[in-house]
Amino acid sequence: MATLSDIGVAAAINILSALIFLLLFAILRIQPFNDRVYFPKWYLKGLRSSPVTSGAFVSKIANFDYRSYIRFLNWIPAALKMPEAELINHAGLDSAVYLRIYLIGLKIFVPIALLSWSILVPVNWTSDGLQLAKLRNVTSSDIDKLSISNVEYGSDRFWVHLVMEYAFTFWTCYVLMNEYEKIASMRLAFLQSEKRRADQFTVLVRNVPPDSHESISEHVEHFFMVNHPDHYLTNQVVYNANELAGLVEEKKKMQNWFDYYQLKYTRNKEQRPRVKLGFLGLWGKKVDAMDHYTAEIEKLSEQIMAERKRVTKDENGAMPAAFVSFKTRWGAAVCAQTQQTKNPTEWLTEWAPEAREVYWPNLSMPYVSLTVRRLVMHVAFFFLTFFFIIPIAFVQSLASIEGIQKSAPFLNTIIEKDFIKSVIQGFLPGIVLKLFLIFLPTILMIMSKFEGFVSISSLERRAAFRYYLFNLVNVFLGSIITGSAFEQLDSFLKQSADQIPRTIGVAIPIKATFFITYIMVDGWAGVAGEILRLKPFVVFHLKNFFLVKTEKDREEAMDPGQIDFYATEPRIQLYFLLGLVYAPVTPVLLPFIIFFFGFAYLIFRHQIINVYNQEYESAAAYWPDVHGRIISALIISQILLIGLMSTKGKAQSTPFLVILPILTIGFHRFCKGRYESAFVVNPLQEAMIKDTLERAREPNLNLKGFLQNAYIHPVFKDEECEDDQYEELIEDSDDENCVIVPTKRQSRITTATSSNPNGGLSQPCLVINLTRVKANRSLDVQ
Amino acid sequence: MATLSDIGVAAAINILSALIFLLLFAILRIQPFNDRVYFPKWYLKGLRSSPVTSGAFVSKIANFDYRSYIRFLNWIPAALKMPEAELINHAGLDSAVYLRIYLIGLKIFVPIALLSWSILVPVNWTSDGLQLAKLRNVTSSDIDKLSISNVEYGSDRFWVHLVMEYAFTFWTCYVLMNEYEKIASMRLAFLQSEKRRADQFTVLVRNVPPDSHESISEHVEHFFMVNHPDHYLTNQVVYNANELAGLVEEKKKMQNWFDYYQLKYTRNKEQRPRVKLGFLGLWGKKVDAMDHYTAEIEKLSEQIMAERKRVTKDENGAMPAAFVSFKTRWGAAVCAQTQQTKNPTEWLTEWAPEAREVYWPNLSMPYVSLTVRRLVMHVAFFFLTFFFIIPIAFVQSLASIEGIQKSAPFLNTIIEKDFIKSVIQGFLPGIVLKLFLIFLPTILMIMSKFEGFVSISSLERRAAFRYYLFNLVNVFLGSIITGSAFEQLDSFLKQSADQIPRTIGVAIPIKATFFITYIMVDGWAGVAGEILRLKPFVVFHLKNFFLVKTEKDREEAMDPGQIDFYATEPRIQLYFLLGLVYAPVTPVLLPFIIFFFGFAYLIFRHQIINVYNQEYESAAAYWPDVHGRIISALIISQILLIGLMSTKGKAQSTPFLVILPILTIGFHRFCKGRYESAFVVNPLQEAMIKDTLERAREPNLNLKGFLQNAYIHPVFKDEECEDDQYEELIEDSDDENCVIVPTKRQSRITTATSSNPNGGLSQPCLVINLTRVKANRSLDVQ
Repeated sequence: MATLSDIGVAAAINILSALIFLLLFAILRIQPFNDRVYFPKWYLKGLRSSPVTSGAFVSKIANFDYRSYIRFLNWIPAALKMPEAELINHAGLDSAVYLRIYLIGLKIFVPIALLSWSILVPVNWTSDGLQLAKLRNVTSSDIDKLSISNVEYGSDRFWVHLVMEYAFTFWTCYVLMNEYEKIASMRLAFLQSEKRRADQFTVLVRNVPPDSHESISEHVEHFFMVNHPDHYLTNQVVYNANELAGLVEEKKKMQNWFDYYQLKYTRNKEQRPRVKLGFLGLWGKKVDAMDHYTAEIEKLSEQIMAERKRVTKDENGAMPAAFVSFKTRWGAAVCAQTQQTKNPTEWLTEWAPEAREVYWPNLSMPYVSLTVRRLVMHVAFFFLTFFFIIPIAFVQSLASIEGIQKSAPFLNTIIEKDFIKSVIQGFLPGIVLKLFLIFLPTILMIMSKFEGFVSISSLERRAAFRYYLFNLVNVFLGSIITGSAFEQLDSFLKQSADQIPRTIGVAIPIKATFFITYIMVDGWAGVAGEILRLKPFVVFHLKNFFLVKTEKDREEAMDPGQIDFYATEPRIQLYFLLGLVYAPVTPVLLPFIIFFFGFAYLIFRHQIINVYNQEYESAAAYWPDVHGRIISALIISQILLIGLMSTKGKAQSTPFLVILPILTIGFHRFCKGRYESAFVVNPLQEAMIKDTLERAREPNLNLKGFLQNAYIHPVFKDEECEDDQYEELIEDSDDENCVIVPTKRQSRITTATSSNPNGGLSQPCLVINLTRVKANRSLDVQ
Repeated sequence: MATLSDIGVAAAINILSALIFLLLFAILRIQPFNDRVYFPKWYLKGLRSSPVTSGAFVSKIANFDYRSYIRFLNWIPAALKMPEAELINHAGLDSAVYLRIYLIGLKIFVPIALLSWSILVPVNWTSDGLQLAKLRNVTSSDIDKLSISNVEYGSDRFWVHLVMEYAFTFWTCYVLMNEYEKIASMRLAFLQSEKRRADQFTVLVRNVPPDSHESISEHVEHFFMVNHPDHYLTNQVVYNANELAGLVEEKKKMQNWFDYYQLKYTRNKEQRPRVKLGFLGLWGKKVDAMDHYTAEIEKLSEQIMAERKRVTKDENGAMPAAFVSFKTRWGAAVCAQTQQTKNPTEWLTEWAPEAREVYWPNLSMPYVSLTVRRLVMHVAFFFLTFFFIIPIAFVQSLASIEGIQKSAPFLNTIIEKDFIKSVIQGFLPGIVLKLFLIFLPTILMIMSKFEGFVSISSLERRAAFRYYLFNLVNVFLGSIITGSAFEQLDSFLKQSADQIPRTIGVAIPIKATFFITYIMVDGWAGVAGEILRLKPFVVFHLKNFFLVKTEKDREEAMDPGQIDFYATEPRIQLYFLLGLVYAPVTPVLLPFIIFFFGFAYLIFRHQIINVYNQEYESAAAYWPDVHGRIISALIISQILLIGLMSTKGKAQSTPFLVILPILTIGFHRFCKGRYESAFVVNPLQEAMIKDTLERAREPNLNLKGFLQNAYIHPVFKDEECEDDQYEELIEDSDDENCVIVPTKRQSRITTATSSNPNGGLSQPCLVINLTRVKANRSLDVQ
């Protein structure tokens, strides 16, 4: 068992490594050539121009201004300075609310820590349960003297812990309720303040029943003409454009190469660049590059035209889904919240997601398939959680010396070498597991996609929920009760219901030091690593050095990244769980948690301001999930305390403690009823207010024009921009047919995002083309 | 353990008693003086006039026509003859669908019984597990030879049971799905075919926020004028009229006495009747009866007028709730399904229940109180289920000899007598328990009322759900594992999760004979007792003999009763549970279940046609609950089979069986998504169709007049009829202000119902007054 000084040493090491990360960051960030790595957000907002284009060459790469090294820590106050309202404006509500999760951690645990250190620690310290135990030769450490372990069996002092648990519960609930209320009002204010957006007027209709006499578009039109006669405006049918998307992607690549060679040619007019046609341009016939790519683009354009016609004209091209737009927000809110026909599996309506976050491939799934897919995924997730260790163990066995010798005998000579042998034996099994854990959120995301959610935010929320469960079972329980999740499951099934919390409860104080180390390694050092952005740093410089051909490429090489809600939030939840479980048991753990929340808040605030660029804005739609998971952590902590108490000769306290989870569940239901709807539905009053204001301000608004092409598959939009309205765009870049989703973050228009082919292409088309057209013209001039 | 012949004897006894009941019924029902006991439905429909008013006196009382005795069983084909469509027309959809529950029992269990008798019984019979067991001195009966107990430990024959369980599950699900679909379409057709009804246009709004400048009615009007500008029509605020209702009730009683004495006076003009003013008219000053009651009525009328003014004028009289009516069904459907404001606890809208089934006292509950009440009732029900035996035991101890001697020593002399002593010792404890069980549904109903549901159908559904759980724990589990529910809970908490189904599973084959007896006593004899209507029979004749003063009184003495869904449906569910649990284990039980379902179907069909008169019509809104409970019975049966198998040396079959509950849950979710909404929401398309048709047919309809007073508290309605529009009524009994809810069962207008003061008073006012006015006039003429 670790003593206080052991913990101190571990803390020192971790703080040191965190400090080294921070120092490295502080130095790297002021080097101009890293500017795009550490401040991409500002580039995307158009508020920062490339330092490479101005000043002397050397000062473009390294910073020799000694004053900036003196002020190397000034990013910390800078990160904290921006007020929340501005932050919402700058980075969106999703990011601002995400930061509040860390703040809640502080709000919950700082008072709890003060309380437990001023009351529980003295109570524990002045007991002498461990001294009595020592007489029976049970060893213990200093930390245990501060924990509940030091209180004698059956002592009345446990009532103090019980009262404290009440205080902790009430405080946590109080903070949670305030926060829920605050965030609900922030969300409503955010939605209310938004400019006119297509999704305010639009409803996604799925499972349109087939009609032998009409096309889907006509059928939709007729249906809503009849059933929403005063409000229906227009509709956009969803086309199955997966093949088309492939062709467009291909064409874009060709266009890129063409631009590259053209640039090369303009720099060196003497020789027209040539390419080899074979694999990766390494062999094959040599042809003129520009001619070749022009021909390729030509060919692809024709194919795309043909495919487009096929998709839009062909009966099978249209999916039985459509985006239906209404004349008023009120009409859309009504349609989204009501059932249209007596068959609840047809004409399913829901509030349309923002155009950027539509997950197009899932739009056509029929109802029965959804039920089956959901069931299959539940079962699959169950097996993933409890049996994931089996395939891992299989791969690990393959990755062993004997495994490799068997499956790939030709590698014998290599792996016989001592160094490689030791690498395989020492690292490979661990790496296999680590790789699995790194890819786990992605696997869960794929599972969500298979399940058929139509918006990226709902995909993320489902994946986050599953990741949380996985962590709960395999990290939290798995660490407390050693053994694989499957073994736990087996032993739990064979244990009685009141024995399970007891088994876990007993193990909790013992594992405190383990979790303290975990917090330091995973929390402190992990967060410090986040600010250094090592991967984007390396990738950007590699790309910049080897691949960047055009300015546009450099823009693309700059990967701002984003908060992947589904991968990060469940990990924060683990800290809430640890804090709440250990608050009445081992208060020593709390300062570590508090430091984590404070530090992470600082780092992520900086990153959100300077780096991350969210792909879409869900207006904090994920909050009910966050709230629910903190509540469940609270309930788990209460049940485990019951289990622990009953092993401490205080089984008579059970009735008093059982009240707590019941109250907590009641509180949760109250919050759910009181606030959740703000995150789910669109109240009519708000819609009516916005409608009325708009009618008063812009009586002659051409709404139909505004909504016409808002929900076209990104592939079609690209095409339209490029082919049909090519020239118009230059004249009037605010043309209604192409300005699609004006959001708060309009500055994104100044750049291209290609990171997500599904949601990220609503606006860039405009700009790409503008840039390209201008480039072409300047070439012509030359 | 009971042998086959024991069961045979028990069956004979029960069949005999059932036959005696039926014979008694057959004789009693053809006696004219019982006509109102056995055919009240027809009286209420106005299709049968009192036999007392025509023919010779003797034949009015007894039937001496021998031919009718020969045809004494002709009620059976008569009961089955009425086609379902006519039955719906005659008795409403609720009753027709209720009968289908019994039919489902037949549809599920007849094929299952055939299958299990042709496959499982031979398999069990030809095994010799019990013979082997006999060698080890384990006794067994003939019935066990037909059950799964006869298969040897670890035999491969268990795979047959396993396959059969699959077949049973699929068959049950198939029947359930067909039935859900059928009933959903019946409900939709029923709703579609209904005439114009106020609730189609009306939405119940609760939690209207207070406004300092406007009255509630104005506030509601303004809010809906703004937010539903094209559709809002009118509103009716809910008043707190509980006191007023008391006064009206009192006045009605006085009026009744007045009528009685007037009748007496008209029969015997010589002496004006006199009454004593003291307790129950037994002592006190003697005064002229008619003068006294006229004065009393006068006084009460004034009080009522004053109270009415107070309630409607006073600020505190209006509750923050209102019935809001719309111009179209579409508008009402939209408002009921949408959220009005950003605060989801204000302006709560829901589809208004039929005026008859509004539970007025609950309309004013604020949101927070609802959450708390719900939580409190959940906890209370938990304690009721698991600890109900504690107060019962306490009362039983009081009801013992020693208890009475202690608490009431003055009774000593009486209870010392041997006979009374033995009665107290032998019966009292049992009676205390029986009384509790009889009152249990009522207790659960009171709990539901406390919880704050606003319609009687939802009250009934909640009470039914709780009654089902209580039966499951205390009757089903309580019979299998002897011991109180609390002891079971304790032992379950201390058992492991996989041990619980095993413990129960093992006990199941042993308890088969007990449940067979239970089915015969509770099911067969109980149902046969139902047709005899012993309680209404006795009560009617007692009332008729002693209390009936006027023809109106006789109408009121005739208690048609109704199917109390909350008390009867959960008991049917017990038979589904028994059938599904025993189908793979002891197929011998199935014929008893089938006989129960068939017999009960017959009896209840007869009763529904001839006797019961439902208070309200919910259009089978309870069906999702019925479906859900059969599904849960199916899952319980599957889990118990897993437990049983694992004790039979077939633990390796568990994975195959575990799939079944998962599939069943998936099936349930599918059905829920596919059909449930038909029972919850009002689809827009249907509303639009009815609106359009109506506009075409009656372009000049005065909808406002129709809806004006539809949702007035019954007390006000009564008053209006009596005082204000007294004379008008005679002129035009179809006056819009008084014809409130035209339903399918308009024939109810011809009678008065006083059985329920909340929901049953929507129409009778008309008729009572008419009758009275006519009576008065005829007196005047004389």
